[in-house]
Amino acid sequence: MIYLDNAATSWPKPEKVYDDINRCMREYCANPGRGGHAMSIASGRAVINVRELLARFFNIKNPMHLCFTKNTTEAINIAIKGIINPGDHIITTCMEHNSVIRPLKTLEKYAGIELTIVKGNEYGEVDPHDVKNSIKKNTKLIVCTLSSNVNGIIMPVGEIGRIAREHGVLFLVDAAQGAGSIPVDVEEMNIDMLAFPGHKGLLGPQGTGGLYVADDVRLRSFMEGGTGSNSENTYQPEIMPDFLESGTLNTPGIVGLGAGVEFINSFGLNNIRLYKHMILSRFFEGLEEIKNVKIYSKKSMENNSGIAAINFENTDSSEISNVLDSIYGIATRPGLHCSPLAHETLGTLKQGIVRFSPGCFNTVEEVDLTLEALREISVKL
Amino acid sequence: MIYLDNAATSWPKPEKVYDDINRCMREYCANPGRGGHAMSIASGRAVINVRELLARFFNIKNPMHLCFTKNTTEAINIAIKGIINPGDHIITTCMEHNSVIRPLKTLEKYAGIELTIVKGNEYGEVDPHDVKNSIKKNTKLIVCTLSSNVNGIIMPVGEIGRIAREHGVLFLVDAAQGAGSIPVDVEEMNIDMLAFPGHKGLLGPQGTGGLYVADDVRLRSFMEGGTGSNSENTYQPEIMPDFLESGTLNTPGIVGLGAGVEFINSFGLNNIRLYKHMILSRFFEGLEEIKNVKIYSKKSMENNSGIAAINFENTDSSEISNVLDSIYGIATRPGLHCSPLAHETLGTLKQGIVRFSPGCFNTVEEVDLTLEALREISVKL
Repeated sequence: MIYLDNAATSWPKPEKVYDDINRCMREYCANPGRGGHAMSIASGRAVINVRELLARFFNIKNPMHLCFTKNTTEAINIAIKGIINPGDHIITTCMEHNSVIRPLKTLEKYAGIELTIVKGNEYGEVDPHDVKNSIKKNTKLIVCTLSSNVNGIIMPVGEIGRIAREHGVLFLVDAAQGAGSIPVDVEEMNIDMLAFPGHKGLLGPQGTGGLYVADDVRLRSFMEGGTGSNSENTYQPEIMPDFLESGTLNTPGIVGLGAGVEFINSFGLNNIRLYKHMILSRFFEGLEEIKNVKIYSKKSMENNSGIAAINFENTDSSEISNVLDSIYGIATRPGLHCSPLAHETLGTLKQGIVRFSPGCFNTVEEVDLTLEALREISVKL
Repeated sequence: MIYLDNAATSWPKPEKVYDDINRCMREYCANPGRGGHAMSIASGRAVINVRELLARFFNIKNPMHLCFTKNTTEAINIAIKGIINPGDHIITTCMEHNSVIRPLKTLEKYAGIELTIVKGNEYGEVDPHDVKNSIKKNTKLIVCTLSSNVNGIIMPVGEIGRIAREHGVLFLVDAAQGAGSIPVDVEEMNIDMLAFPGHKGLLGPQGTGGLYVADDVRLRSFMEGGTGSNSENTYQPEIMPDFLESGTLNTPGIVGLGAGVEFINSFGLNNIRLYKHMILSRFFEGLEEIKNVKIYSKKSMENNSGIAAINFENTDSSEISNVLDSIYGIATRPGLHCSPLAHETLGTLKQGIVRFSPGCFNTVEEVDLTLEALREISVKL
């Protein structure tokens, strides 16, 4: 199979990810932070190491303010529901995933929050001035995706962060698409909360993700439960990361995530970015020679986190993806990608989009085979 | 290391757990329920298989009403916060883990719920009549642990379930301790909601767990986000299990959990129970010959899910555990085990307890070595 669905989850993972997970489970996987025996300490140390690794990766000063979650969705829910009160105003964008839109729409409906969705250009790119102009007295939070999971468009997160800081508004970035291929610096970008997945660009396993919360941001707890700390306290302890990490952590998953990030560090984030861009450029070049293709992604590396979103005229996106899968063994994702607003922006709510999302293990040969398949399909349509 | 901390997390796992996780990650781990390509379908099918396997394991009629969570704590939070409204009365017991107590105390403090904590006997065993007598007009929910994570005492869950059903009160069981060693039948036991971990008695990996919700129980959503279903809907879809499963699932973890349950099924739940009881009986017998030991667990299989909770007179439990770990390489868990109420009940809030929790891979030799170590320790005290 030619796997071009890395925006859903990256595959394959670096060998070290498989190996480290396996070794963790076989050799030392006790419950981290519970009990003081050698194996529990080894598990705890492994978790701390990855916490520190990720903190360095995102330039987070205090690793204890990075908590592990099961996925980005959990991180976003913790962040939004932990800070928002009835009457608050939230600004978000037209390219958000349902992991942002559904919590916000639910809060709008049941908890009396006010919501502004800033529109973008034809690619969904928002103008920071429009964000600025949407700020009101009761604006509490701006939520913005790092890049779109539909067409890869990179949002002006740095500029929006500056505006948020200037206006005393909190800034939450959904880095589900882009963490691991776009450099993220929470300090430089004025990010107060960063939600990210482990299993996409960071090359870790599914079941991992995280949330960074700046030192001066006070959330309500989202889940209460055992933390292995302050056990005598029948209320949630307020120290981080325990405050947001109730119940047993996914130790082998976190270890695997650490191996993924180590791979990125050893290869170099920028080199991975350049490699993926080379793959994607070749794909875009090849598409130029194929008839009836509509492209919804920008082609430059500065504007695209690594996705080619296309359609064949008005053909349903599922039809193309099905043929790619069943005849050519090529994995893509059609439909709406859990992002109806983005498709509304791109005008593809009905047709969907065929999304090609190569990863750092895809080869030039695979790109050429995919282009060949698309050429054949275009002739038959 | 002699690992006697299976109540925290089971270790080792059956070989098939390691192998299936590894094969899943290497061979077919795409995003289940997202996209229709061969690998995504293979992942989705693997998840469904485990859902059905677990449903059969707990006698859940509709597998779609079993949703996967990252741990038991998440499952309990989803259940309690999804059903409780201000003014509701909740009954729970004196042996609950902080995963139950902390959400309840938080709701009591901030959301105006009323809480009754039913006391038990010297082992923490509650009398179902006391539960019955605590029911009031506004009682919405009874929450009870299947067995205590501190001393293994098994609660009369079946009888409490009958009482709950007779009074039209919902019944949530926390099966963190006991699932995989005590037979659980949600129909027979009148369980409306069952929260369970994947990484303890079910022998799966950390990062897994689940919540069963009976067909006629309507929860509020806990997290909203992408579900891969009804993507055009900017609100959470109401179909189960999607309603409670936002964001990418932990596919390899769930596959590993399936392998754990298959191991239990092939070995036989009752055989595992008998084997663990044999191990534990030998341990209790040996303890009788050791001076100054106080035992807080019942010894019979009908009353104990598999824990020996002990102390040496008034010696701090951490001191004993530390010696066991550092001198003898024996892993136990001292302290409060995230269950302050249970320790209050047992009178060990200050001293803690040294918890021995053997698993189905512990051997008679390991028990004897542990007893030998305890004999030496008792002499030196």
